[in-house]
Amino acid sequence: MLEKTTRINYLYDFYQSLLTPKQQSYMSLYYLDDFSLGEIADEYGVSRQAVYDNIKRTEAMLEEYEEKLCLFDKFQKRNKLLNGITEALKTDSPSKQALLEAVAELEKLD
Amino acid sequence: MLEKTTRINYLYDFYQSLLTPKQQSYMSLYYLDDFSLGEIADEYGVSRQAVYDNIKRTEAMLEEYEEKLCLFDKFQKRNKLLNGITEALKTDSPSKQALLEAVAELEKLD
Repeated sequence: MLEKTTRINYLYDFYQSLLTPKQQSYMSLYYLDDFSLGEIADEYGVSRQAVYDNIKRTEAMLEEYEEKLCLFDKFQKRNKLLNGITEALKTDSPSKQALLEAVAELEKLD
Repeated sequence: MLEKTTRINYLYDFYQSLLTPKQQSYMSLYYLDDFSLGEIADEYGVSRQAVYDNIKRTEAMLEEYEEKLCLFDKFQKRNKLLNGITEALKTDSPSKQALLEAVAELEKLD
């Protein structure tokens, strides 16, 4: 059984445009619409094993893209910095210096 | 003659990890080290035309990646927002509201 993880959901979100239409369909049915492997197999008239293999390969591709482009990793780092800035701005007298440093960190992420 | 543009330099920067080692070599010699097509051809013992065709194809691939992932486009937008935040923070009393809006824009870019 494949593990339906949040990580794969995110990776799919970032890299789906690099996948083939068939890979996109299987992934989207499995991860977004929560179909089972058997239901996807029925839908496409292929074996459950074929669907499993395809999704498994696609997941490996997504991890390879992440290794090369680090979009999910950068997204998480960026998010953390942006949350920090938002929190700081909500306080009475946020430190400008700290905010400028957070902005500099954000610039370095690109 | 290929035009050595800043845009291609940026696209190469963002997507080079998705290229083959040979594509990376040609692109890096041509765009970063400013070799001529003839010099690269000599270096690799291939025709000038072969180098030209390879670089031309690679440039098209970079544009396709940009169409799919928009990393350069998002980088530019992010940069503009970050510069705006930096400028605002350098003024005497930056508007918290404007800063929070810029941060929200940054969050939307991911």
